[in-house]
Amino acid sequence: MPAPRTPAPRKVVLAYSGGLDTSIILKWLQVEYGCEVVTFTADLGQGEELDPARKKAELLGIKPDNIYIEDVREEFVRDFVFPMFRANAVYEGLYLLGTSIARPLISKRLVEIAEATGADAVAHGATGKGNDQVRFELSAYALNPDIKVIAPWREWDLSSRTRLIEFAEAHQIPIAKDKRGEAPFSVDANLLHTSSEGKVLEDPAEDAPDYVYQRTTNPEDAPETPEYIEIGFERGDAVSINGQALSPAALLTRLNDLGGKHGCGRLDLVEGRFVGMKSRGIYETPGGTLLLEAHRGIEQITLDRGAGHLKDELMPRYAELIYNGFWFSPEREMLQAAIDHSQQHVTGTVRLKLYKGSARTVGRWSDHSLYSEAHVTFEDDAGAYDQKDAEGFIKLNALRLKLLAARDRRLKT
Amino acid sequence: MPAPRTPAPRKVVLAYSGGLDTSIILKWLQVEYGCEVVTFTADLGQGEELDPARKKAELLGIKPDNIYIEDVREEFVRDFVFPMFRANAVYEGLYLLGTSIARPLISKRLVEIAEATGADAVAHGATGKGNDQVRFELSAYALNPDIKVIAPWREWDLSSRTRLIEFAEAHQIPIAKDKRGEAPFSVDANLLHTSSEGKVLEDPAEDAPDYVYQRTTNPEDAPETPEYIEIGFERGDAVSINGQALSPAALLTRLNDLGGKHGCGRLDLVEGRFVGMKSRGIYETPGGTLLLEAHRGIEQITLDRGAGHLKDELMPRYAELIYNGFWFSPEREMLQAAIDHSQQHVTGTVRLKLYKGSARTVGRWSDHSLYSEAHVTFEDDAGAYDQKDAEGFIKLNALRLKLLAARDRRLKT
Amino acid sequence: MPAPRTPAPRKVVLAYSGGLDTSIILKWLQVEYGCEVVTFTADLGQGEELDPARKKAELLGIKPDNIYIEDVREEFVRDFVFPMFRANAVYEGLYLLGTSIARPLISKRLVEIAEATGADAVAHGATGKGNDQVRFELSAYALNPDIKVIAPWREWDLSSRTRLIEFAEAHQIPIAKDKRGEAPFSVDANLLHTSSEGKVLEDPAEDAPDYVYQRTTNPEDAPETPEYIEIGFERGDAVSINGQALSPAALLTRLNDLGGKHGCGRLDLVEGRFVGMKSRGIYETPGGTLLLEAHRGIEQITLDRGAGHLKDELMPRYAELIYNGFWFSPEREMLQAAIDHSQQHVTGTVRLKLYKGSARTVGRWSDHSLYSEAHVTFEDDAGAYDQKDAEGFIKLNALRLKLLAARDRRLKT
Amino acid sequence: MPAPRTPAPRKVVLAYSGGLDTSIILKWLQVEYGCEVVTFTADLGQGEELDPARKKAELLGIKPDNIYIEDVREEFVRDFVFPMFRANAVYEGLYLLGTSIARPLISKRLVEIAEATGADAVAHGATGKGNDQVRFELSAYALNPDIKVIAPWREWDLSSRTRLIEFAEAHQIPIAKDKRGEAPFSVDANLLHTSSEGKVLEDPAEDAPDYVYQRTTNPEDAPETPEYIEIGFERGDAVSINGQALSPAALLTRLNDLGGKHGCGRLDLVEGRFVGMKSRGIYETPGGTLLLEAHRGIEQITLDRGAGHLKDELMPRYAELIYNGFWFSPEREMLQAAIDHSQQHVTGTVRLKLYKGSARTVGRWSDHSLYSEAHVTFEDDAGAYDQKDAEGFIKLNALRLKLLAARDRRLKT
Repeated sequence: MPAPRTPAPRKVVLAYSGGLDTSIILKWLQVEYGCEVVTFTADLGQGEELDPARKKAELLGIKPDNIYIEDVREEFVRDFVFPMFRANAVYEGLYLLGTSIARPLISKRLVEIAEATGADAVAHGATGKGNDQVRFELSAYALNPDIKVIAPWREWDLSSRTRLIEFAEAHQIPIAKDKRGEAPFSVDANLLHTSSEGKVLEDPAEDAPDYVYQRTTNPEDAPETPEYIEIGFERGDAVSINGQALSPAALLTRLNDLGGKHGCGRLDLVEGRFVGMKSRGIYETPGGTLLLEAHRGIEQITLDRGAGHLKDELMPRYAELIYNGFWFSPEREMLQAAIDHSQQHVTGTVRLKLYKGSARTVGRWSDHSLYSEAHVTFEDDAGAYDQKDAEGFIKLNALRLKLLAARDRRLKT
Repeated sequence: MPAPRTPAPRKVVLAYSGGLDTSIILKWLQVEYGCEVVTFTADLGQGEELDPARKKAELLGIKPDNIYIEDVREEFVRDFVFPMFRANAVYEGLYLLGTSIARPLISKRLVEIAEATGADAVAHGATGKGNDQVRFELSAYALNPDIKVIAPWREWDLSSRTRLIEFAEAHQIPIAKDKRGEAPFSVDANLLHTSSEGKVLEDPAEDAPDYVYQRTTNPEDAPETPEYIEIGFERGDAVSINGQALSPAALLTRLNDLGGKHGCGRLDLVEGRFVGMKSRGIYETPGGTLLLEAHRGIEQITLDRGAGHLKDELMPRYAELIYNGFWFSPEREMLQAAIDHSQQHVTGTVRLKLYKGSARTVGRWSDHSLYSEAHVTFEDDAGAYDQKDAEGFIKLNALRLKLLAARDRRLKT
Repeated sequence: MPAPRTPAPRKVVLAYSGGLDTSIILKWLQVEYGCEVVTFTADLGQGEELDPARKKAELLGIKPDNIYIEDVREEFVRDFVFPMFRANAVYEGLYLLGTSIARPLISKRLVEIAEATGADAVAHGATGKGNDQVRFELSAYALNPDIKVIAPWREWDLSSRTRLIEFAEAHQIPIAKDKRGEAPFSVDANLLHTSSEGKVLEDPAEDAPDYVYQRTTNPEDAPETPEYIEIGFERGDAVSINGQALSPAALLTRLNDLGGKHGCGRLDLVEGRFVGMKSRGIYETPGGTLLLEAHRGIEQITLDRGAGHLKDELMPRYAELIYNGFWFSPEREMLQAAIDHSQQHVTGTVRLKLYKGSARTVGRWSDHSLYSEAHVTFEDDAGAYDQKDAEGFIKLNALRLKLLAARDRRLKT
Repeated sequence: MPAPRTPAPRKVVLAYSGGLDTSIILKWLQVEYGCEVVTFTADLGQGEELDPARKKAELLGIKPDNIYIEDVREEFVRDFVFPMFRANAVYEGLYLLGTSIARPLISKRLVEIAEATGADAVAHGATGKGNDQVRFELSAYALNPDIKVIAPWREWDLSSRTRLIEFAEAHQIPIAKDKRGEAPFSVDANLLHTSSEGKVLEDPAEDAPDYVYQRTTNPEDAPETPEYIEIGFERGDAVSINGQALSPAALLTRLNDLGGKHGCGRLDLVEGRFVGMKSRGIYETPGGTLLLEAHRGIEQITLDRGAGHLKDELMPRYAELIYNGFWFSPEREMLQAAIDHSQQHVTGTVRLKLYKGSARTVGRWSDHSLYSEAHVTFEDDAGAYDQKDAEGFIKLNALRLKLLAARDRRLKT
């Protein structure tokens, strides 16, 4: 019989939510490996209290020194969400990468805590079918090449809900009543988005039931009156709403409130997972949807066409890298360097109109504007632009096409 | 004194709308060059009667044989709009290229009519500041390397409205009352979109006044009840609505009605023109907006991830080529060949929900689906997928990242 | 104890060279799985007799009906090598993909023979560290989703040369004397190239010893006199040498002779493998090196700049796909469609100068040439080109740069 | 009669070589515009004395204060050539951009001198058919949006050699005897390369005559014995040869000597000019050819695969931007930021073998190496790599291909 794939760890830092599943993992790590467990619970803006997580960890025998509970919302938005939005990143044309962008941060803290506590392994609660396992583990390995990663869902034989509940009961893990049965779908949430998938959502022909949506008003129930808001940008990042300066996390929180109220940012998507299959997700990204629209709006007047088109061409690759878990990779950093270079004048203000599910740019202005009414005007432009230049411009752009056409004619005769 | 840039043509085919401006051009060509004029008036779905164009051309002395009036709507949608939508083409993230895609077709017919009538030149009414001159002329030169192109707006000295009106009056060109003054903005329309720009729209900080919108209901006035529609696709092209097979132009017309009714497809954009300046346009693309959303929806289940990501990466370049006027270029055709190759299984049906300005995919199904519930399910997958495979997948994807991290550690010590 | 990863196959088609290693694999399949074995031995131009492979297979108990020996050289060059050379594909700037391009063909025949003989599995002799396992298996799965693939090197415990020899002796597999010890390096060969790697070549700081090179003369020993050859192309593919029409395989064979004689096509490379590590290889691609140079030479006069630049941008991705084993993938086929579209006029003749390791284009001509001496001449061009057009061309290309510079000045003051 | 296209300048900074053509331009500017002329003569390593340029300028009436003569070789290599080589930039697969990369530096100094001397215009001696006019002018406009650019070759009527000589004689410009007739071809040279084109080189079917080559030995006359050299790199830039630290310009000079002696770096190319036509050039880039080979060599062991492949994909665009004159553009700077980010560990040493026209990497080593003999070895790797990981890696990479194949089968039945 071959040796176990993952050598037994001595001490493991577990990404711990305080929920039933990660509590079972916690216990399983203790039982299976006899190892010391350190828990890391992060407030990423998922909207849950963290105190219960501490209590549950203690209940499961974790030493207070081994319980890490942190509010990482500002770091999340400042160092992960905002850099990504500088790129106008969307995956497969539509997905704002709300889950993908949170994983590297969690892994970064897991690895740092491992190094601080002398742990030799980290563990996560992602299954073997999804992208999150890849994101967690690539990030961990990129930050610490010697770290072990434990992915219990790929290892254990608790393959049904019944087995899980039995294990929990056998080990005195408290089970909330509503967790005994199977959830009708699975949820991931953070300050950028809520994603729901699985079970009742698995048939992509069927509309998602309304109870799936958690942070956006149904557009049909949204206010009858549009709301106008102004988002201020500096060097590519949003810094204010309606003139009020806000920290990154406070700003995104506020955008979530505004977007959610007006039903913005719902997405029903079938996407191609990195592990090879297609899956269907329901995403709610109210604030992010506003942010993307506004960022494009301010780039429209402040970003050069050459820079903007290059960004557009690089974006799908950049988004794919984040989706696939390569945040901590040289090529993502290279693209980030290019993107960040382009943002030094992306400063100004955008006015958005929010109304029943849509968020549209209806005005933008900036001291850094490249828009020149003098050049574009239908009126007399006082010599700013010589229309005769266009003839030479066209003639030389056409030259190679004319040579092609002349060849075609020559060969036909 | 140098020779005139454009040698005098003998016979010119003019893209003629029947409006005041192209009537002035018609007369100016006769006066300035003493040449025979052939008029070409196309029904591209702009929503105007063509009969008056014939009468006006006759009035201006054009021989009946020299008056070409054609309904090219089916060709427009089938051979230009649909191929472009196979690519999910958007320019600068937002613009559906409604004007850009119509120009090559007009040039194609101008050149064909020139060859049929023995004309040595074509003429158009685009100004020297915009993209349309480039699109008209690159297409013309690509199709006939010996053709002359006359662009009166770049040549004449009728540089103000007053001068134009004087010229019209001096040459007995009838002037509709509402054309004496300056229009508050300039409009281009075809079956795909209406674009409005200039004058009252020149300040990008100011919201467009409501009267600018011509083919979309204000979302606030749109129906209170969502409408669900189903669009059927075959090999990448839409072929039916709610189960009813429709020709390309009939289908797009119907989508325009549906989208327009629900206020879909409005866009307020500042874009980078090929000639170098930024301009602001208000676009209405109701049917196209639905089509793009639905096409992405059907690709989600029928298009392989590798193919889809490659398409996404190629798209910005493809859109730029169309925007810049390079429809008839080898590189656009190369990209089209790649895109078309990807569409052979993009067949199936998408359900959209239309409501007050938004159009969202809420269901899709297909005999060609690649979505495998057996693989993705949270339930027991009966061995379709071995979660242990993920470990090796991650380990080898991580290997180079671990080697990088190991180097960093080595160099630090 | 968990179930074996690969369920036991009933009947396996083995890629069989007739050498010691694949003979051991043959026997191991019989012993380990008790399954029927079909052998497939292909002449890809590796320069070895195939008859001994038949005899050895018979000796090892393979039924005559189960022995497939085929000359696939023409198919190899026509359907794999030539399409790849249309793209000017090089991996990591230098590698002509000689091994990568042969694997899909072998897998294709393995799968076809499996279907013809009712086999449920295929097997290959590639190790678990290299790229070839990936190429074999991705191709097999892409062509038959239900096929099993057996990769003995990843499964068995014959992990040392001693164990292998013991196994061979225990099963009466004849061992040539020179195979008892370890080879000083490992070789793969086909009509396109010879690759050598491993063992004595593992230190990338050390020059490869001269005895590694197998099909190219040391440039220092090559003829003192240059040789000029002319390669004719039609639609992107080479069709003749010095005016003599040749089949694809005959042509490549002849180019190998010519290039090898003059010491062309040696490459010492450290490359990034798909499985994550870097490896060092010594490649000899004499004919391919001449072919690439000549293909670029003919494209120089027959391929439009827009098409050529797009090809250059797509090429690294295309090469990566082939290197990584994705020949039979939608995205490789999409790129191929684009590339092939560009080649319709890549017809003409190139003159190369071969001399002591270098092959340089020194002349090219074609009826399909786009080169226009009338346009480019320093002499009077009789009006083919109006130099004044350049001013407008530059002015409009500069416009956005001027607007950027004006913004910088404005913000500084 | 229309106004002149370029308003008369008051004071012009001329890129002045001291040769006959730019002397005629100098005089023509004085005569045609009656303006003050400032001359700028740069030592870019073209191998000509600069003192005669001073004397000729004085002779033509330029005030000493208006004569700028500068050695910019170090700046040229450090700030232009080296950043470009970090990208492994080649245009159309072959051209090392020797002329293209020098133009932005000249324009930069022209604009700086204009600002220092209160000049309102710059002038250059490039013709209206080539790329250099574009490069000069785009750079100038990007650095000073208000500068005027005078391009006499596009303006004057000195359209034949006879007219030029007459003008020179009429204005007492001394004419060297060998300049009376037409040169058999035109030359541009700097520290990176010599380019020759025009006249006797205009037929791309004809081999270039030997007298065209100016800085490389004919390979047939090069030494019979190979020479090995070692080039040291730090962070992507070459810093030493055979262990001797050298400044950028000194290093490139030494590489030119070495490469030239061994006949390296000759190129006969037909290329696509930005202005639309194809032209044929003979390039000699001895040092650059060695530098490119060695840079690729050191990247092979120090650059991550992900970073390297991204660089390869971005390179054609980057090269095109430089070729087309967009050095001072946001998109070139964005790409540079990405490329430079990748070079932080591109440090180490490469051994090249130079022999009769070829320069091949035959060894490379570095403290920053990512090459891991432990991983790649054919010998026992002591657990560095688990071959079983490859199975999962392949299975998940294959999954989408299997789903595609399964669809094909399903639809066929």
